Amino acid sequence: MLAAMIAPDLDLAADPAELTADLIDLESVSGGEGPIADAVEAALRRLPHLTVHRDGDAVVARTELGRDERVVLAGHLDTVPLPTVPGARGTVPSSWEEADGHRVLYGRGATDMKGGVAVQLALAAALTEPNRDVSYVFYDHEEVDAAASGLGRLQRNAPELLEADFAVLLEPTDGTVEGGCNGTMRFRITTTGRAAHSGRSWIGENAIHKQADVLARLSAYTPRTITVEGLDYREGLNATGIGGGVAGNVVPDTAHVEINYRFAPDKTPEEAVAHVREVFAGYELEFTDLSAAARPGLDRPAAAAFVAAVGQEPKPKYGWTDVARFSAMGVPAVNFGPGDALLAHTDDEHVSAEAVRECYRALAAWLTD
Amino acid sequence: MLAAMIAPDLDLAADPAELTADLIDLESVSGGEGPIADAVEAALRRLPHLTVHRDGDAVVARTELGRDERVVLAGHLDTVPLPTVPGARGTVPSSWEEADGHRVLYGRGATDMKGGVAVQLALAAALTEPNRDVSYVFYDHEEVDAAASGLGRLQRNAPELLEADFAVLLEPTDGTVEGGCNGTMRFRITTTGRAAHSGRSWIGENAIHKQADVLARLSAYTPRTITVEGLDYREGLNATGIGGGVAGNVVPDTAHVEINYRFAPDKTPEEAVAHVREVFAGYELEFTDLSAAARPGLDRPAAAAFVAAVGQEPKPKYGWTDVARFSAMGVPAVNFGPGDALLAHTDDEHVSAEAVRECYRALAAWLTD
Repeated sequence: MLAAMIAPDLDLAADPAELTADLIDLESVSGGEGPIADAVEAALRRLPHLTVHRDGDAVVARTELGRDERVVLAGHLDTVPLPTVPGARGTVPSSWEEADGHRVLYGRGATDMKGGVAVQLALAAALTEPNRDVSYVFYDHEEVDAAASGLGRLQRNAPELLEADFAVLLEPTDGTVEGGCNGTMRFRITTTGRAAHSGRSWIGENAIHKQADVLARLSAYTPRTITVEGLDYREGLNATGIGGGVAGNVVPDTAHVEINYRFAPDKTPEEAVAHVREVFAGYELEFTDLSAAARPGLDRPAAAAFVAAVGQEPKPKYGWTDVARFSAMGVPAVNFGPGDALLAHTDDEHVSAEAVRECYRALAAWLTD
Repeated sequence: MLAAMIAPDLDLAADPAELTADLIDLESVSGGEGPIADAVEAALRRLPHLTVHRDGDAVVARTELGRDERVVLAGHLDTVPLPTVPGARGTVPSSWEEADGHRVLYGRGATDMKGGVAVQLALAAALTEPNRDVSYVFYDHEEVDAAASGLGRLQRNAPELLEADFAVLLEPTDGTVEGGCNGTMRFRITTTGRAAHSGRSWIGENAIHKQADVLARLSAYTPRTITVEGLDYREGLNATGIGGGVAGNVVPDTAHVEINYRFAPDKTPEEAVAHVREVFAGYELEFTDLSAAARPGLDRPAAAAFVAAVGQEPKPKYGWTDVARFSAMGVPAVNFGPGDALLAHTDDEHVSAEAVRECYRALAAWLTD
């Protein structure tokens, strides 16, 4: 019974694909990261070339070689809940399948993102003298409300542990480099009028009719594609909700539209706000949400060397991810990890052994060449 | 105890204002019209110059004098529920108040419409030989769902009892003549698109944006004022509801707007439908509700004589009322009754004694001159 309380040994020298299976078997749905964090911490503390820090269920291990550059390799330890469908294979424990001579690993977190975490751990053990100082960052609570994020907590509690010239998040990108991310904001435009019985509508003023101009501006708007450091970011300006009306015989005195603007990393949040204020000049904009974009940072030497080592054309990232947290700290960041992001959170989440190994080889080459 | 089961005597020869008080004291919230219908029937059966019919809680009494013209005087016996606010005077029993030398009667139904019913009953008793044959129609279930209407039931069960050249509904109009009524229809226009994550909105097609054109047509539409038989009917075309949107990060694939068209009695329902199909050409219109307009019928001899007798400039009626039921049967109809319609259904519903008497005098003059 007591044995269950002791962190299991992780063999960081094993094939990173096998290590992925061991990590999946340490179930770690958000909020239950304690055992996996303990196992990761214990394994890293056995490595004399690393300095290890623990903050809640986050673990940071760093080389302290005095190199000119420092890079971060980051990944989250938590997963979404296990599938509830009987027979689903994206669960705990993991299972292997042989297909066309390839080995495929099924389990919760196979793609999102215990494959990436296994690569981090294998590199941490193997690279005793990397060409750049490396900070290996493992954190909790990524799959839940952003306010609970273990990475956000680390930023607040020990920002010095995250300082770097460049960061790689090992989120699943199927082996391609996805750089930076668009920012996102939400706002509401409310039109007002004067209520009346619809049988005497000339006494009133229809607030829904007044949305015609707002929708016309949305409809006429051509979203831009903006090139930042060689990557093309497509923007978007969309109504995501509209509402108004009281009853079938009432001229409504209020109507509203909810708008989402996804903006390229050429703009600060303030510049993005100025842009939508211009598009909707004459209206009051009520902002409900605003997250900064992140530049890909591909102009930094560490990033250029990374892209060369990976040997792949970088792509822009459209969704908002934790790279924006690094970007906000002044650390350019990209996503690069094993597995297909479309399989994340699915009932049959899986990753090929070869994808995990390829990711390991690419990063090892970058950090030793 | 048994006495309560017997219909109380109504003195139809009394001052119609006093008779109004007696009728108020016979509580008759919709669904509870039995006692008042019994009392009305009993009083009318005592009059040898009338033929009396009973259908449920509706009562029809007719002169059979073989006149060239027949007119209907109609009113409903039910009221909305009693007020629940302590101290409200628009309740049962009624109460009198003296103000500036005028007597004012408070009680549920004082305006809507026991004053009108009292006038009907007083005329029925007094006019033994009217210059036109008269059908006095009293009905139940007006203040509830239209499907329950006692007038509608009479139309189905005994349409011959309602046949006439002209009808007056004694609904409260403050002594003016309100002729005909606008028709009303409701329909929905749904726009569709293709759902997408708003971070990749170019993959989708925004259904809310497509409402821009629908709202632009509504906003640009100038409602007409159409003169029918000398009365000016103002039309209206209004969005009464709009909706769409799934979540703050989703390009919605469907949005809808609810539209209400109030149309003048120059148009049949079919013509009104054709008009909105033209306004919204290119869209599919989903109709949810359609009620015909009613012509005022002021070109009929009985109506012209009525207007002359009342000595007031007729006004158009904008809301939909039971005059439309008569109109649909080919009987032109107007509203003319004592009391201010704005007091109907209020906690302090009241009517002046003089208003009831004036209405009585105007109708008596028309039917005896």
